[in-house]
Amino acid sequence: MSENIRGNCIVAQSGGPTAVINASACGVIQEAMKHREIKGIFAAHNGILGVLNGEIFDLRRETPQTISGLMGSPSAALGSCRYKVKGDADFRKILDMFRAHDIRYFFYIGGNDSMDTADKVDRLAKAEGYDFRAVGVPKTIDNDLAFTDHCPGYGSVIKYLATMVMEAGRDTEALYTADTCNVIEAMGRNAGWIGAGTALARRTEEDGPHIILLPEVPFDRERFKEKVSYCLERFRRCVVVVSEGTRTADGSYIAEQRGDFARDSFGHTQLGGAAGWIKELIEGETKVKARFAFPSTIQRNGIHFASRTDSDEAYLVGKTAVQLAVQGVSGKMVTLQRAPGNAYRCTTGTADLSAVANGEKLFPREWISDDGFFVTEEFLRYARPLIQGEVKVDVPDGLPLFVRFQKHFLQREGSTT
Amino acid sequence: MSENIRGNCIVAQSGGPTAVINASACGVIQEAMKHREIKGIFAAHNGILGVLNGEIFDLRRETPQTISGLMGSPSAALGSCRYKVKGDADFRKILDMFRAHDIRYFFYIGGNDSMDTADKVDRLAKAEGYDFRAVGVPKTIDNDLAFTDHCPGYGSVIKYLATMVMEAGRDTEALYTADTCNVIEAMGRNAGWIGAGTALARRTEEDGPHIILLPEVPFDRERFKEKVSYCLERFRRCVVVVSEGTRTADGSYIAEQRGDFARDSFGHTQLGGAAGWIKELIEGETKVKARFAFPSTIQRNGIHFASRTDSDEAYLVGKTAVQLAVQGVSGKMVTLQRAPGNAYRCTTGTADLSAVANGEKLFPREWISDDGFFVTEEFLRYARPLIQGEVKVDVPDGLPLFVRFQKHFLQREGSTT
Repeated sequence: MSENIRGNCIVAQSGGPTAVINASACGVIQEAMKHREIKGIFAAHNGILGVLNGEIFDLRRETPQTISGLMGSPSAALGSCRYKVKGDADFRKILDMFRAHDIRYFFYIGGNDSMDTADKVDRLAKAEGYDFRAVGVPKTIDNDLAFTDHCPGYGSVIKYLATMVMEAGRDTEALYTADTCNVIEAMGRNAGWIGAGTALARRTEEDGPHIILLPEVPFDRERFKEKVSYCLERFRRCVVVVSEGTRTADGSYIAEQRGDFARDSFGHTQLGGAAGWIKELIEGETKVKARFAFPSTIQRNGIHFASRTDSDEAYLVGKTAVQLAVQGVSGKMVTLQRAPGNAYRCTTGTADLSAVANGEKLFPREWISDDGFFVTEEFLRYARPLIQGEVKVDVPDGLPLFVRFQKHFLQREGSTT
Repeated sequence: MSENIRGNCIVAQSGGPTAVINASACGVIQEAMKHREIKGIFAAHNGILGVLNGEIFDLRRETPQTISGLMGSPSAALGSCRYKVKGDADFRKILDMFRAHDIRYFFYIGGNDSMDTADKVDRLAKAEGYDFRAVGVPKTIDNDLAFTDHCPGYGSVIKYLATMVMEAGRDTEALYTADTCNVIEAMGRNAGWIGAGTALARRTEEDGPHIILLPEVPFDRERFKEKVSYCLERFRRCVVVVSEGTRTADGSYIAEQRGDFARDSFGHTQLGGAAGWIKELIEGETKVKARFAFPSTIQRNGIHFASRTDSDEAYLVGKTAVQLAVQGVSGKMVTLQRAPGNAYRCTTGTADLSAVANGEKLFPREWISDDGFFVTEEFLRYARPLIQGEVKVDVPDGLPLFVRFQKHFLQREGSTT
């Protein structure tokens, strides 16, 4: 494989957005602009769907202000998707589209499913002798990708959700005589990373969250009821964070007990409803009034209070992906490697796309407290550096200002409209 | 009535907390410290409940850092309540407690119910010849108090909720191929002020919210379905803000259709569930996938992105209440008066406590758009100045730092423990 393929590059975003996924896109785009090997800098509109549908737009025609404005804009400005690539026909179509547009570099910002897609396109290109490089850029609020110390998007979601828990927790503290408990639902289908991260809000024992329910710990109604009663006695109130993916011992989601669920196109159960169910359980069992909150997608897009560290790292992995690809690397995802020692320092590494695609990093059992309702100090030491600093957001008129691409779409032939 | 009563003052907070209700407490406390007439500066713990239960603590024993830290701390640091004062016996008990502690000044930060309580205590004191002054300090995210241009707490809740709508709206924009609609529930039992305020997020037609459902407009299923279909066609997605108090033409809350409701101790229906119901309605009627979010009490405590204008005004009304009381005013609530002209300028006035207690300011019909699904530019001109600027919050370790009182409680005799 030559070290200097000349051609166009394409960047795409996939899956659930984050507050800083656009920082990764910005890293890719700004770095790509520095390399003479890279001619056109294209974007797939709505992830791999944009490639399949030929909806590709020209990022060189966007203004520098829009590109740099990505740093202060949440969610996926290129558009995202939850499309599951459907076997050989789809991969063939993707490669054909890449050939048609002379796309030699593919940067896919996403999670497991995206790494799987990038890996398969890379293998097909190799098999057919098409000189091409695919490098994955990690992104997921779920923090469950293997081979990376943590995932861009995670620091920001826990910084913001912990802040919500602190602020709503003070509401419960003030109104405990009326609204005695509050249950806040954290995203996290299989792994408790997000819910666990809200533990950072608890600087003193009195602060919420007093209880964190994780998918890793089977929900036991009796033990939960006892724990709530203990908190009510000790703190006169109880703030609970429940992971959406919390399950009972038989493996069924507690959210399903209410019927508020469905399945998405990956066959994953769509959650939501865990907090409402826990609220009702508390009211039924303890006879005190409870409230609940379901921040849903709000939590993962909080650029107005996002982690600067997370944003910087999201930029770094995007930028590094381009550097590696130009150097000849393909079939890899950029990882974040934490340097040993007390001071936090993070560098990049790589992992095979296929390994990442098939891996999943569950929340470590040893970071769950003995009673199963909280996390250990070791986890807090892991998580704390990830939320440091705040992203600067442009607030011209009392509200943040976000950029939006003009999206000059390519014709099938590669000329722009 | 003499113009210079010497004695102690007490400040209390009541009802649902806001991001800036502590700024009003700070205004009261810091101003009270400037007046020699005022000896002890006390706080009722949990609003009027603290007076009834003799749970009163000494604010002069708190540090100046705690007092000034109130400006950056959400919710009600003195504690709040939803207790409905129960007739003569309670008012008698309140006045007795004030006498026992030589309390001559009463500053009650709250909404209609609190103004009613303050008014009745004031009348009882006058009837019994107890030299005493009660001044109300307006507070409510609902913005529904009469005689004031707007209410402290409102600017911050709409600034934050509009930001949530912008951020989650970008999520829907990125993922419209999978999650095509998003429904976000705004607080607001009777008046649509909060939901309406999220219209500020819509700088261009493409931005959400595309539809705002207000309690003032009877919900019509057919017309709503048509409007959603129009948005799907035009924008390929639809972001809806639904007020928790949205009702059908027969007066029943749409939230009640799901059964997720109960009544609080004032007999008000406790809402929550409107967004979930609308989400299901959209999915059933249009066959596209929808999500919902229920930010609940999170929305009213967002000090980390609160309006500086709101915070300044909250401080101002607290400070002014003390100045007026020392000058001999009683039985009044401080109001905010907007000066005429294009440049926003706000001064204070007063209104009778009894008039405020019995008034309610609904959202003006003429500020609702013709189709009933949005608001007019005139409303936006009213609301925009209220969200300007950001409150500075101390973020020492990646998360905001909030103060908490030490709460040195008084003995029944008035000496401190």
